[in-house]
Amino acid sequence: MKFATYTVDGQQFYGAVADGGVIALSPDCPEWPTLRNVIAADGLYKLAQMAQGRDVTHADGTFRWDIPVPDPEKIICVGVNFPDRNAEYKDGQDAPPNMSLFPRFARSFVGHGTPLTRPPETPQLDYEGEIAVIIGKGGRRITSEDALSHIAALTLCNEGTLRDWVRHAKFNVTQGKNWDGSGAMGPWLVPFTSHDQITDVALQTRVNGDLRQDDRTGRMLFPVARQIAYISTFTTLMPGDIIVSGTPTGAGARFDPPRFLVPGDQIEVFAEGIGTLTNGVVDE
Amino acid sequence: MKFATYTVDGQQFYGAVADGGVIALSPDCPEWPTLRNVIAADGLYKLAQMAQGRDVTHADGTFRWDIPVPDPEKIICVGVNFPDRNAEYKDGQDAPPNMSLFPRFARSFVGHGTPLTRPPETPQLDYEGEIAVIIGKGGRRITSEDALSHIAALTLCNEGTLRDWVRHAKFNVTQGKNWDGSGAMGPWLVPFTSHDQITDVALQTRVNGDLRQDDRTGRMLFPVARQIAYISTFTTLMPGDIIVSGTPTGAGARFDPPRFLVPGDQIEVFAEGIGTLTNGVVDE
Repeated sequence: MKFATYTVDGQQFYGAVADGGVIALSPDCPEWPTLRNVIAADGLYKLAQMAQGRDVTHADGTFRWDIPVPDPEKIICVGVNFPDRNAEYKDGQDAPPNMSLFPRFARSFVGHGTPLTRPPETPQLDYEGEIAVIIGKGGRRITSEDALSHIAALTLCNEGTLRDWVRHAKFNVTQGKNWDGSGAMGPWLVPFTSHDQITDVALQTRVNGDLRQDDRTGRMLFPVARQIAYISTFTTLMPGDIIVSGTPTGAGARFDPPRFLVPGDQIEVFAEGIGTLTNGVVDE
Repeated sequence: MKFATYTVDGQQFYGAVADGGVIALSPDCPEWPTLRNVIAADGLYKLAQMAQGRDVTHADGTFRWDIPVPDPEKIICVGVNFPDRNAEYKDGQDAPPNMSLFPRFARSFVGHGTPLTRPPETPQLDYEGEIAVIIGKGGRRITSEDALSHIAALTLCNEGTLRDWVRHAKFNVTQGKNWDGSGAMGPWLVPFTSHDQITDVALQTRVNGDLRQDDRTGRMLFPVARQIAYISTFTTLMPGDIIVSGTPTGAGARFDPPRFLVPGDQIEVFAEGIGTLTNGVVDE
């Protein structure tokens, strides 16, 4: 069972994804305004029960996919998390002792099927395919051993980046990583019930069918369990918080010459057991 | 008239600050759950009218000060924004062409009077006195000329930092800037009605009465109007968003040897026209 957030005629719903569309469940759950509230109440299993035997309410093509948790308290992204990514920086530095982290605002993401926005300020829109981890049970100083039990669900992320704006200032990637509508998340949440869903799964990104990123989560420098442990050292993780777990080598900026996204491109982020997140590109 | 958010017996209120305490106003405004909603409705003037002639509801000493906008969509901090601060880095680089930015989560701040938390992981808790700008009218690609008209109010910030964790990873200061309860904001909002409130005012930080930071906003490398213009280039600013506008030279890390905060210290951040934000320090 998979769960999605979506909009019809300006009204946002969440529901269960089924053959041919979505079964609306939010109208029956006024105590849970968004999937964040469902997750905070450990309610994904109850949603699955509610959906049993119901018909599709909104058929494919009649709704817009939104980012699955539309109102997380925080979204934290992990940078430089695959072996060859550190080498891509060509600065002669060894793999770092701790993971690079940067926050993104929810408004920097669109849902599945909505095109990414290339702004007039720069042509350097780039893709980064990643798996996004949705925290279920919050906590502080979570151990690596317990960490995976704090995950509620997984989804996909195209952690779209305005490459030159990442280095616009002396420190920090903030402005290159937070353009409105420059990335995507979705299509849906897959409930996390087994460690096998994250420890070593294939993660691939295609642009117009061309395979650009292709790796496995088992090769992460900082595995997801360690991410949860490290991040919760300094900040309390809350239900619905999102950790975007890092991208393999092969973003457009790493080609010579670089291959940035242009209007009309189709980007597909795929991970085993989650599905495919597809987005086009439009000029603002 | 000044406005504060505060807690009594676990219940959060907002109200007007008066001699001897606070006049509760939130009970009369159920349509505005927090000061963020008040600001989004351009309602500070209405609050001021409501408070006229009323008695103090909660006397000083009977409540806990909270951060004035407890639930902002985003908090964006500006780094390295006073002339001598760039020189402090001693990396031989000229002043950068664009401002460094980093987000902080609201839970990294406490209100006026609550001690900052020094965690067991590091003794390098440091202060940074700053003015925080609260956005009133949102927008995207706001011009520098219009920028100050988008400000609803000002407050103070002790942008407390765990110094060694700022450089824990290859990129980004995220983890050194986001420890739970490591900084402070408040005590109150001062409505913004004149450009003179921000263009060239004194900003000072004292530790145990000793003047450590002392500068004027007129010397900012990137003045607040330019901050609003630059940030809104890439992200839509929303009512209640907070821009923490940068700290003068003189943080504890810049002394030789460094003078980090220890339990029992009292830090006062003062700005002309806003007031004084005072916090102690406790070990977690």
